[in-house]
Amino acid sequence: MDEIVIGIDLGGTMVRAGAVQRDGQILAMGETTIQASEGPNAGLGRISALINHLVAETGTSLLGIGIGSTGPLDLERGAIQNPYTLPGWEDVPITAHLQGIFNVPVQLENDADAAALGEYWRGAGQNVARLMAVTVGTGIGTSLIQKGQIYRGINNCHPEGGHIILDPSGPLCYCGANGCWEVLAAGPAISEQARQAALRHPESLMLALAHGKIDQIDSLTAASAARQQDPAACEVINRAARYMAQGIVNLINAFAPDTLVLSGGVMKSADLFLPEIRQFVHRNNRMVPADSIQIVLARLGYYAGITGAAYTVYQQQ
Amino acid sequence: MDEIVIGIDLGGTMVRAGAVQRDGQILAMGETTIQASEGPNAGLGRISALINHLVAETGTSLLGIGIGSTGPLDLERGAIQNPYTLPGWEDVPITAHLQGIFNVPVQLENDADAAALGEYWRGAGQNVARLMAVTVGTGIGTSLIQKGQIYRGINNCHPEGGHIILDPSGPLCYCGANGCWEVLAAGPAISEQARQAALRHPESLMLALAHGKIDQIDSLTAASAARQQDPAACEVINRAARYMAQGIVNLINAFAPDTLVLSGGVMKSADLFLPEIRQFVHRNNRMVPADSIQIVLARLGYYAGITGAAYTVYQQQ
Repeated sequence: MDEIVIGIDLGGTMVRAGAVQRDGQILAMGETTIQASEGPNAGLGRISALINHLVAETGTSLLGIGIGSTGPLDLERGAIQNPYTLPGWEDVPITAHLQGIFNVPVQLENDADAAALGEYWRGAGQNVARLMAVTVGTGIGTSLIQKGQIYRGINNCHPEGGHIILDPSGPLCYCGANGCWEVLAAGPAISEQARQAALRHPESLMLALAHGKIDQIDSLTAASAARQQDPAACEVINRAARYMAQGIVNLINAFAPDTLVLSGGVMKSADLFLPEIRQFVHRNNRMVPADSIQIVLARLGYYAGITGAAYTVYQQQ
Repeated sequence: MDEIVIGIDLGGTMVRAGAVQRDGQILAMGETTIQASEGPNAGLGRISALINHLVAETGTSLLGIGIGSTGPLDLERGAIQNPYTLPGWEDVPITAHLQGIFNVPVQLENDADAAALGEYWRGAGQNVARLMAVTVGTGIGTSLIQKGQIYRGINNCHPEGGHIILDPSGPLCYCGANGCWEVLAAGPAISEQARQAALRHPESLMLALAHGKIDQIDSLTAASAARQQDPAACEVINRAARYMAQGIVNLINAFAPDTLVLSGGVMKSADLFLPEIRQFVHRNNRMVPADSIQIVLARLGYYAGITGAAYTVYQQQ
């Protein structure tokens, strides 16, 4: 009987799981809503049911469980400490809980780190010595993988390159800083700037694309309109691209990675951002061999977190 | 007979060397000007003479030679590639040259990395798991030491955290970027801002301290005047402190080091910068356990480079 590791991608609203073979192939996938309002016990029950279902469906033997979870996490205790995006999930010892039920090794990692490991193992950054992953979605997360190992900060924390300050005169972020990368150029920031631009320019294509409803405009609306050369949308996208480029130039100067992998919802519009990013990197990074650094899109999409979470278990063997 | 390693700190104008024992004690020191205009052969001759002198003076046996050099360097070939601060020193294979003469192992490292290693081994960051060193002088250099190992970027390059962009509307730096940390807040930037402030405010104490000569005003003049509450000088120093704090907050978010060691000529005025830095870090770094991060001054001064350069040889044994 084949052996598999269950990789779990635990987000604020959804939990996705996959049965991952030793070669990184995903044999089967499943998902469920997490329903944080039901409390952590109900959530843990849903996760266990999902694992049982995948093991039964694939007819395999369970070797271990890897979890990439939205944070903050207490990695030493294997616990989730996340009242922010998983309300009620404070001090939830998910590792011990699943170990008790399934009697296999369980690994817990930050979701950005798990996704970066997935891209390192099976995606766009395979076997890269220094892989920097940048996820631009609701927030901006960064992760450094050094020779397959996650870079950890003090107290084993997950560093937050998405909160480096790009413009101290910018708006206030929940991180405490004004004008950090995330508050200037993550999805919600671009969406808000698009709505403001549409208010100032009611003739903008963005409003038409959103059927006249300002509050329906988001970053993807701005991207669509910019592709059709709508001036107001182009301004919004160009502004976001400049911040994206500045953030990436800063990561390159600080880390000089071999490869930089971009992912996340906002990067669905990467065609609009990449030219500016590449030009800015070329112009602004003379001190490190920046033109040798690969800037590429992630390949695994949703599967990155599951794949990388499973990899953390295979790595321990 | 005792054994020693010669540690060398090779700068643009001076070369300093020390005979370093296995416990990190410096038995003897020597220095000479490098006289780049005489060409690399003359410089290498001076370095060899300095090594011979130290070995003879201490009556010890030479175990190896470690060099911390101003860069850029080609670490794989052990060569200096630095037409910028060592004019004429292009493609100088210093490692092979000294190996040929002394027949001992020779290690070449970037000077900022060597100084950081010195602080890790014998200075302000002893045995720290993640040590970030920041040198603020003529330029701003950063170095990450992970468990005693130098973090290297693509092609083994030395990353340049001092060139992260803090304000893209700022002045142009030789690194290619506008408004990088170095161009905004290294020594020459502070000195220039002090001169401009003195021009605008001829009543400033800075002018008196410089005996009325604008071009004699530098960052230390501004610091002295600021300590006496001179308003124009305080403005200059506060501006520099804010950029310093922004740069350090960015390094903390990106790396989350356990300890951050500050050194360099500008940090002689650290008493003026540290309160703003600490307050800014506390306020702006909620995402990583920033209040647990030690922000301290370097302890070894001039000796850091020599000590760390010698350590690179002891590490290999």
